[in-house]
Amino acid sequence: MKYDNRPIGVFDSGLGGLTVVATMKKLLPHENIIYLGDTARVPYGDKSPANIIRFGIEDTAFLVTKGVKLIVVACNTVSAIAIAEIRTKFPNVPVIGVLEAGVAACLKAKPKYVAVIGTRATVSSDAYRREIHAVNPEINIKTIACPLFVPIVEEGLADNEISRLTIEFYLKPLKKKTPDMLLLACTHYPLLKKSFQSYLSKKVKIVDSAEACAKFAEEYLRENSLSASKSAAGTERFYVTDMPDSFFKQARKFLGRDLEHFQKVSISEN
Amino acid sequence: MKYDNRPIGVFDSGLGGLTVVATMKKLLPHENIIYLGDTARVPYGDKSPANIIRFGIEDTAFLVTKGVKLIVVACNTVSAIAIAEIRTKFPNVPVIGVLEAGVAACLKAKPKYVAVIGTRATVSSDAYRREIHAVNPEINIKTIACPLFVPIVEEGLADNEISRLTIEFYLKPLKKKTPDMLLLACTHYPLLKKSFQSYLSKKVKIVDSAEACAKFAEEYLRENSLSASKSAAGTERFYVTDMPDSFFKQARKFLGRDLEHFQKVSISEN
Repeated sequence: MKYDNRPIGVFDSGLGGLTVVATMKKLLPHENIIYLGDTARVPYGDKSPANIIRFGIEDTAFLVTKGVKLIVVACNTVSAIAIAEIRTKFPNVPVIGVLEAGVAACLKAKPKYVAVIGTRATVSSDAYRREIHAVNPEINIKTIACPLFVPIVEEGLADNEISRLTIEFYLKPLKKKTPDMLLLACTHYPLLKKSFQSYLSKKVKIVDSAEACAKFAEEYLRENSLSASKSAAGTERFYVTDMPDSFFKQARKFLGRDLEHFQKVSISEN
Repeated sequence: MKYDNRPIGVFDSGLGGLTVVATMKKLLPHENIIYLGDTARVPYGDKSPANIIRFGIEDTAFLVTKGVKLIVVACNTVSAIAIAEIRTKFPNVPVIGVLEAGVAACLKAKPKYVAVIGTRATVSSDAYRREIHAVNPEINIKTIACPLFVPIVEEGLADNEISRLTIEFYLKPLKKKTPDMLLLACTHYPLLKKSFQSYLSKKVKIVDSAEACAKFAEEYLRENSLSASKSAAGTERFYVTDMPDSFFKQARKFLGRDLEHFQKVSISEN
């Protein structure tokens, strides 16, 4: 058995992608993980495609300099808009993203009617619809942009009347004709999962793209003989491009524990 | 009478500063205005002081290349954190900011108890309290960071049950002991002014730093013989660093009309 102990590089526009890292640590406890959160330019969700592509390439370039064996794009916006450009720019490193992981998990469950919710940029890109329909054009898909969910989660209001009203505001159209699946196309949304489930019928299956992404990475490593040796626990290192006051509180929310071994870096030259 | 027809340069992290331009156009119809909105890096409110200073200097540098006679910092976050650094870096151009304008308007009304609301960065800086107390340490000041108001305004929910609940969430502490003044330390907040007034007592005077800033600019030009000739209507030119899908809708909300003569530019080296 051959092992590959090089780290996995994970990046997101900010700290939301730590929900992916949290699941990866459970599924892949022996892997070394390097995380980059571009907190100086967060959020990407309301930016234009040209800038999202540039930011995604800069984030990847930083992780590539750390000698990673796999890039995990834990940002739905980048995953929806810039992944082809990233692959073209870095042909020697495999790149997987939350989007393809979410789409794979969705298709596996064979739904008939799927509601996809995410940031404005993710929804405008229509990438989830395109990727799902490329495999099964029979699936009925409704997409809804929900820009308020990210700041609500970041304010710690996931379990508050404000979030309930906002969920009603965005998801009311789903009450007329209930989908059999709700696909969470944003790494912040797992923190609202319970509230989504209690607003919609309990029959609605919720697919969380962050969780799907960690599973997808686990499979990818196994199938491509890239897994790390099981002789030691994996290490982790976190890089961010900015550290505002709220940094630690936010990180704890998404990671489920305190952040250790973190460092502030500058990642872009232009 | 001497005239100075060089343009006034106004900048903000995004499009919220257009509320300052809207008032300036009423007060100063003959002035030429150049506006820069750093929409690629918006919002600044949750970033660290070091990055806010860097962004503010880059924004100013761009406007200085356009030959402006005055810089108006229409961003409360930059105004609270970076204005001294900007003045040091650009000693030959006068720089005024929403913060000093808001503070001046506040002091003029001689309040006893003022509540200041703004983004997390503006409130953490404690700059409003410092500036007000530098002149009158007797004034009782309460500051409240309200990060959800900006995305609520941008989602067009200023007049919705969600905004009413969020106002209650943030401003409830003011119900116990009602202030005689509410100082809006963010250019997005004028769009919530009516809702603030109806939540608090009608006796509470609301000072809008955006409106105060336009008045302050008008006085500054007059007192320093920098006013433009009244022989022609002023021109305006808008620059942004990114133009996402929602750009026009947002701009219309803050400016009160459609944006003309706009251009996308790149302003930073990193």
